Amino acid sequence: MKKSVIELTRKPKIVSTYSVVGKKEYDGPLGNLFDEYCSDDKFGKDSWEKAESEMQKRALSGALKKSGFIDTELDALLAGDLLNQCIGSNYGLSNFDVGYLGLYGACSTCSEGLLIGSCLYGGGIINSCAVVTSSHYCSAERQFRFPLEYGGQRTPTAQWTTTGAGAFIIGNEGKVEISEALIGKVVDKGIKDITNMGAAMAPAAINTIKRYFLETRHAPEDFDLIITGDLGFEGSEILKDLLLKDGIDIRKNHIDCGLMIFDRMGQDVHAGGSGCGCSAVVMASDIIPNLEKGVINDVLFLGTGALMSPMSLFQGGSIPAIAHLVRLKSCN
Amino acid sequence: MKKSVIELTRKPKIVSTYSVVGKKEYDGPLGNLFDEYCSDDKFGKDSWEKAESEMQKRALSGALKKSGFIDTELDALLAGDLLNQCIGSNYGLSNFDVGYLGLYGACSTCSEGLLIGSCLYGGGIINSCAVVTSSHYCSAERQFRFPLEYGGQRTPTAQWTTTGAGAFIIGNEGKVEISEALIGKVVDKGIKDITNMGAAMAPAAINTIKRYFLETRHAPEDFDLIITGDLGFEGSEILKDLLLKDGIDIRKNHIDCGLMIFDRMGQDVHAGGSGCGCSAVVMASDIIPNLEKGVINDVLFLGTGALMSPMSLFQGGSIPAIAHLVRLKSCN
Repeated sequence: MKKSVIELTRKPKIVSTYSVVGKKEYDGPLGNLFDEYCSDDKFGKDSWEKAESEMQKRALSGALKKSGFIDTELDALLAGDLLNQCIGSNYGLSNFDVGYLGLYGACSTCSEGLLIGSCLYGGGIINSCAVVTSSHYCSAERQFRFPLEYGGQRTPTAQWTTTGAGAFIIGNEGKVEISEALIGKVVDKGIKDITNMGAAMAPAAINTIKRYFLETRHAPEDFDLIITGDLGFEGSEILKDLLLKDGIDIRKNHIDCGLMIFDRMGQDVHAGGSGCGCSAVVMASDIIPNLEKGVINDVLFLGTGALMSPMSLFQGGSIPAIAHLVRLKSCN
Repeated sequence: MKKSVIELTRKPKIVSTYSVVGKKEYDGPLGNLFDEYCSDDKFGKDSWEKAESEMQKRALSGALKKSGFIDTELDALLAGDLLNQCIGSNYGLSNFDVGYLGLYGACSTCSEGLLIGSCLYGGGIINSCAVVTSSHYCSAERQFRFPLEYGGQRTPTAQWTTTGAGAFIIGNEGKVEISEALIGKVVDKGIKDITNMGAAMAPAAINTIKRYFLETRHAPEDFDLIITGDLGFEGSEILKDLLLKDGIDIRKNHIDCGLMIFDRMGQDVHAGGSGCGCSAVVMASDIIPNLEKGVINDVLFLGTGALMSPMSLFQGGSIPAIAHLVRLKSCN
């Protein structure tokens, strides 16, 4: 069988992370863990899109400050978001003086960025980089669904786009390393319901997890956590059920960033959180710090993304999805 | 000074290329060089967006066939386009069974894909990959400017988005190698005119070229060609003028894919061609085959991209731009 899992012999470390969130995220279960929040979802700007750029800027500035790097010392910056033409990143990061690689992986962009950055480091091409991603509830709703002013009823399977940006500095020094990566494949099982993204994305996560376990001969119990990005309640149930039918039981150690960031019932977010920023801020504020402390030691992180656009759905398309995997290990 | 130019010790080869274009491109000066064209710009589909996906599919299929690879033998697929959420690539390539990395670099995506693919190969992370990008005049006009039916007057500085997709297979065997790469930085000189993208993008190309020559101590005359992606007439003039003021004279060996693909006057395209597909099909059909034959031997290729969205401009933003560089050498 052809080898797809990338084993990094030169293993990059996570030098620092930084998370910036909105008020609803701050009010959620992880609220105290985030580095910065703003009670005004416009972050002092005059549009939601500019607010999203501002979050990215603050996230990268914060991560740089923590890391001791300045922008010109980095070898690359990898970033992306959900907005048309990725303007959250393009405008938010344009003042940093560093080579910029724009990514589009929808909500999988955090894992895609960590994957590409780690591989470029692993291959000795770069010695450091930053990965930044974001999403914003208001900019995403008006772009992908309905104007907020319309007050549309949300379905039970709908998720709530996280307002947040996460940044990661990758380099030589740190207490967490990225040891393996697996590039996701596009999986399209014919789901057309834009209010049930979890169902569309779960098959992509299943594809990646099955390929990983088949090739590495690891089992779920070898990991403290198997973390998906934003499958939410529906998608997480589908993931666990279908993997179980294939003999892979991840029920004990699976968690989903979309289920962690909000109190699903108390905060009325239906199936949970979603968005590029969801996994980014949960990884940056909770998972990676716990790996740094040695509270957990070995984690599979799968960012999950739905690759449709409103236009592709209007034209009758279903929702292709993807899930990129990186393995994070504590160096303690 | 910190080193930014990436010298690849393990140099990837271009195994094969394939170009698919529309009728206007086929009627242009390079018409006979393209691998495939369709007299119907819908490529047998019922929307322009689906046509763009179809072009990507045909481009990758063609490149794979020429290379002798099948999709499952590739280690990665890097792709992107100009459409919101990159649906040209996401839908066009979803049936290929290979790990997929989505990129957004606007019209620089071809060079961004070649750069990342080459670096992943150069670092020993992958042994092969495909790079695919596209643009479509009709899907781009309605998304970025006006509905075609409106029949808007075009300004003299406006460019014509190329209808085309180009695919490149990177691997061990081939007559052209990628030897160096330089990641572009975002440059924003305050241009806000969406009908003068050349002026917005030229400063990014200038930034990359200056950094390249400063660091490598090469001079323009060391190269047979310095090729930009889609600066068009306006942008090319700005590029040459401003570089000359800095003592870098590229007037003798600069060409621009946007000025090659159409007969600017005869085909009424004003300042020239543009789009992700523009540089992709010109590189795939003309430049790389000439490197393979040894007609030319050493080329700097700079894909140029404008990173705005219609919304960012409506909100008063200017146009950030980027230019990624790869150096291609004949192995003859």
